[in-house]
Amino acid sequence: MTPEDLVEIEMIKRIKYAYFRCIDLKQWDEIAELFVPEATCAYSGGAYSFEGRDAIIEFFVKAMGRESFLSSHKAHHPEIDLTGPDTASGVWALEDWVIDTQWELDIRGASFYDDRYVKRDGKWLILHTGYRRVFEEMEPRGARPGLQLTASWWGTDGRSSLPAPD
Amino acid sequence: MTPEDLVEIEMIKRIKYAYFRCIDLKQWDEIAELFVPEATCAYSGGAYSFEGRDAIIEFFVKAMGRESFLSSHKAHHPEIDLTGPDTASGVWALEDWVIDTQWELDIRGASFYDDRYVKRDGKWLILHTGYRRVFEEMEPRGARPGLQLTASWWGTDGRSSLPAPD
Amino acid sequence: MTPEDLVEIEMIKRIKYAYFRCIDLKQWDEIAELFVPEATCAYSGGAYSFEGRDAIIEFFVKAMGRESFLSSHKAHHPEIDLTGPDTASGVWALEDWVIDTQWELDIRGASFYDDRYVKRDGKWLILHTGYRRVFEEMEPRGARPGLQLTASWWGTDGRSSLPAPD
Repeated sequence: MTPEDLVEIEMIKRIKYAYFRCIDLKQWDEIAELFVPEATCAYSGGAYSFEGRDAIIEFFVKAMGRESFLSSHKAHHPEIDLTGPDTASGVWALEDWVIDTQWELDIRGASFYDDRYVKRDGKWLILHTGYRRVFEEMEPRGARPGLQLTASWWGTDGRSSLPAPD
Repeated sequence: MTPEDLVEIEMIKRIKYAYFRCIDLKQWDEIAELFVPEATCAYSGGAYSFEGRDAIIEFFVKAMGRESFLSSHKAHHPEIDLTGPDTASGVWALEDWVIDTQWELDIRGASFYDDRYVKRDGKWLILHTGYRRVFEEMEPRGARPGLQLTASWWGTDGRSSLPAPD
Repeated sequence: MTPEDLVEIEMIKRIKYAYFRCIDLKQWDEIAELFVPEATCAYSGGAYSFEGRDAIIEFFVKAMGRESFLSSHKAHHPEIDLTGPDTASGVWALEDWVIDTQWELDIRGASFYDDRYVKRDGKWLILHTGYRRVFEEMEPRGARPGLQLTASWWGTDGRSSLPAPD
């Protein structure tokens, strides 16, 4: 590994960071720019598999487009290998948490991603992405007395309704 | 981006990592060294906004100084851009969890930070920091039967009271 | 800090990322390759301390070997210092979550690691690792009505049993 390799690896990490920002903030136009047109995905051990960037984005919007779907996807532990001048692979450890205020559900889990990236016109892009769950759980929010949502990006303009400390 | 840029970016990341270590371990003297004197903050969509390093630190101590306030703030997905030889901006995805054993509450949430950094005398410092919540929730701990705190930095010297595996 | 230093630091981070992947996926043969033979550990404020790689691995298998022990360990905020040409120290902020489906328990916590690394034959290895808890909690899963495990690496081949969005 050379310092120049590290620059490539940093640019690949940035693609993944932008990807999850776009997911959690519902920035669907920007996320499309992170994939090659022929990209494929195989999420959740293949349960959600799609071919082509358009089909992937359509899935995102359908699954996560509602403002009542609040999510926090966090990717950790990047093991990125440059496999050629314009190709790379990446393993990431995910932890994700969804609060669905329409269905009054939490979904939480941990996963490992196996990604492949390509560099085109000087820009790294996602060729394939997918993950397998280490575990996933679902819990009804109504069964937890006193649980309250106190802020949301869309509902409170990102501001907490909790009182400030005295 | 050059290898030399990466060194600057790593030093900026280190400021943020030290910042959250100081928050969660209540190291208020060290955290003051991470800000410029005229620093500003706008936390929680602006709900907690302060001008000047001293006012920011005073807020930290008031809000989080108690040893019954146990916190884990974790910053992810650094999108750091060098905007000049001595200036930079940073977007970070936060997830945070507070266990307040005095008020018997959990507060958990996800946020996006928008930071600005400056380099002075060869050291990167925080000029502005602030975040908006993607979501935040509060839950009374007393409503969850069987929930037990089994270790804390100040209460058990960081040691678990759970039995070791046989 | 130089670009060449960053390469060393990235290689040290990779050791830690591989370590936690091995922990959460129970890859005990690979994890052994990350330690020097004389490695020591002091987990949970010293509650779980062992001398020698073999004793450490034996502890891992005993504590976390069961497929009913589902874990997500995530390390954040690496503050890695090169202390010599072949030695380094590292502070990491951990958050971890264990779902034990045999004992129907969750264990969750936050910690700070203090690690020491050495480079031998061109490869960075763990000389010492250990952490102190900021906090740790335990909760019976049976006390949370409606909580369901919907996927696991070993039980469902990493695939969710939740219905796909319409």
